Formats: sequence, structure tokens, C-alpha cells
Amino acid sequence: MIPILSIVGRSGSGKTTLLEALIPLLQARGYRVGTVKHASHEFHLDQEGKDSWRHAQAGAEIAVISTPKGLGVFQSLSREKALEELVESYLSEMDLVLAEGYKGERVPKIEVHRGQLGGELLTSKEEGLLAVASDVPLRAEVPLFSLDDPKALADFLEERFLRNRQREKVQLQVDGHRVPLNPFVHDLFHSLLLAMVAPLKGIGHFRRLTLRLDTSENGKVIQP
Amino acid sequence: MIPILSIVGRSGSGKTTLLEALIPLLQARGYRVGTVKHASHEFHLDQEGKDSWRHAQAGAEIAVISTPKGLGVFQSLSREKALEELVESYLSEMDLVLAEGYKGERVPKIEVHRGQLGGELLTSKEEGLLAVASDVPLRAEVPLFSLDDPKALADFLEERFLRNRQREKVQLQVDGHRVPLNPFVHDLFHSLLLAMVAPLKGIGHFRRLTLRLDTSENGKVIQP
Repeated sequence: MIPILSIVGRSGSGKTTLLEALIPLLQARGYRVGTVKHASHEFHLDQEGKDSWRHAQAGAEIAVISTPKGLGVFQSLSREKALEELVESYLSEMDLVLAEGYKGERVPKIEVHRGQLGGELLTSKEEGLLAVASDVPLRAEVPLFSLDDPKALADFLEERFLRNRQREKVQLQVDGHRVPLNPFVHDLFHSLLLAMVAPLKGIGHFRRLTLRLDTSENGKVIQP
Repeated sequence: MIPILSIVGRSGSGKTTLLEALIPLLQARGYRVGTVKHASHEFHLDQEGKDSWRHAQAGAEIAVISTPKGLGVFQSLSREKALEELVESYLSEMDLVLAEGYKGERVPKIEVHRGQLGGELLTSKEEGLLAVASDVPLRAEVPLFSLDDPKALADFLEERFLRNRQREKVQLQVDGHRVPLNPFVHDLFHSLLLAMVAPLKGIGHFRRLTLRLDTSENGKVIQP
């Protein structure tokens, strides 16, 4: 599983600012970091009137814009995707995903606390609270970090989520949801997949392999 | 393979306008349509200053913004992705991909021609030209459609790419590139995959299954 960590806190506490500090620190250590932001406001891919904006407006289910320096994808949805689904679909190659605004999801959390906003902590250890980043001293049931010292927090995250992590070699996803594999099945699938593709022409050393099975045809589910 | 069709033509000929007309016509017939736009201009995910914009600015390799009505993904790249790679990564569930601005790629093309812009056709049958949509009569070695009649063009595309299409049930991708499977291997992989997951707990009827194999660990390629 790719570790997902959510930054929570009151509006104006500095969640995005903390993310902005953590991202380059973790990347400098060689980790691939992706982010997910939950937003209620509408947003637009590209500027109004531009071609890719028009593609999305015309109802394309997915509109991609590709440039030499990056790409953008806009997908219109009839229901919001859960955090785990988003990570599976778009962030499966990352080492760590930092989310913002997913207080209700069952993922580990760092709460940003700012003294002048007052109040208690929003989350508890039972809800996944892992650490607090605060600009004032406070009592917490989890490790406390200073908002002025994102490096200490990056050390903590690296130790906890990234260093010596055994990445699963095989991942199975069914209808958008990850299916956990026990160690025996994991190793069996690993051997089977390597054996399946080894005899194919043109396959030498490779890093990543994806096999997709689609049982639907013309919108109808066909029983295997 | 997902059919990819590129709309080409001179600047100002009406490529995007034609796409805007085709998308709803094809969707009304039940097809899932995605688009790809090649652009040289920079673009931004979300508005400047907004959180997801800041995530991308802070260097997140992939920044996702999720709202109840849709999601956006921004991926920063060191080299531009080829059209086929984009389709594999982001549009693999579509029935048809309409691209704009990929004149050099080896995909079927529709050229939009506008009399007042003058000149010859930009593409030939050898370069994949499949049809011409024009506002003036002209001689072409391929079927000619009126720009005023996108429905006739949609009929043509449906007949050519969509109707009675046998979707491959199994797709194999290695390091971002599709590996074609001959019918024997395709059917073998289909049976093997179904047999592999059938004994797993919690797997009943499903539409899509994805198995990923990652041979790299901590950035190093490990020989299988």
C-alpha cells in the first residue's frame, strides 16, 4: 500500500503552508510525493475559452491537456471518488501521498494547530492522529512538532512511512478497489506474472507491468 | 486497442468546434469519449493561489484536486508523453479518444479544411488521413464531409471505429507501452487471470481487474 497521510486542521491554520514545506524536503531525500486536495469549489482545467477547457465543457468524460513540461487531466464525475480510489487511479507510482482536507477518512493524520485560532485539537489518536504541528506548546497524546521546524516532521514521516519500506511487488485492484494479498498469494502471483510474460517476444528487463482484464462488453457484464 | 482519432487542420480551421460537435453526438449513442489536446502554452491546474495550485507549485510530482463533480490531475514531467502513453495512463476506459494537434503521430486523422484559409490539405492518406471535413467542395482521396453536418461524420466514425467492436478483454502494458497479444496468448491470459483471482475471498462478479507488478525497489531495478 502507498502510505497516505492527511494534513488536517482549522481553516487558516496553515495546512497548505506545511505541505509546501514538506514536499521539497521529502523530494530532496529521493521520495516521490503526490498530493490530493479535497475542494468544494468548482475549478477549471486550463483557462476559460482555451481548447482543453472547451473539450471538458463539451462533455468529454476525460479531457487531457499535454505540454512539454506537464499534463493535466480533467475527469467529470457523477459521484466524488474516495481518497483511496484517487490514489489507486492516479498516484500509484508515488512513495507517499499527502492529502489535505480529508478529516473523515480513515488514514493517518497530522493536525496543524495555531494558537490564535484557539480551541481543542480536532482529531484524536483513535481517529488516526499521528502527530501535531503547532505554533504554541500544548498537551497532546501524540508527538508534537513545531510549525517552524518542518524538517523534524519530515524526519518523523520518513522514519515512520518511508525508510526501509518493503514495497509490495504485486498489487491487485478489482473495480477500483485494492484487494489485499496475503504473503503466499502475493508471492504466487509474482511468480505467475513473471512466468506469463517471460515467453512473450520483446519483453526483457522491465520495471512495471500492468495486466488489465475487462469483463464488460458494450456496457453489459458478462459472466466469466 | 482503444481507437484514437486525431483532428488536424490549420490554425483557425475549426478543429475544436468540430470536436465540440462530435462529443455530444457520440455520447448520445452511448459511447465514452475522452479527448487529448496538445498545447505548447503553459496551463495551470486550478486558479493561482488556490491550494491545489500551491501543491503543484511546491513541486508535488502529481497534484490531484477532487470535488463532488469532477477531479483534476496535474503531473509535472521532464519529457512530454507520447499520445499512446497518455491514452494508456489516463483514457484506458474510454471507447474512443479524440485528439487535437497530433499531426505527426501515426494515428488515423480527420482534417478540417476551411476554404477562406486556402491551401492544400495538410495530410495524405499515407499519413493516416481518413476523412476531410470542409466548408467548401474539394477533391480528396478520402471521404468528404460537410463541416455543417457533424452527424454524418459521427455516423462514419461509429461505423468505422465503434459499432460491433470487439474490445480486447485483456491488455498488457510494460513500462508504459502496450504489448500486443496474439489471440492465443490473449485467451490464455484471460483464462489464467480469471483462475488466479477466482479462489480469492471477496471476489464475486466484477467488471475490471488490474494486476500490477513492480520489479523496482527503492529505485533499483531487481532482476526477476
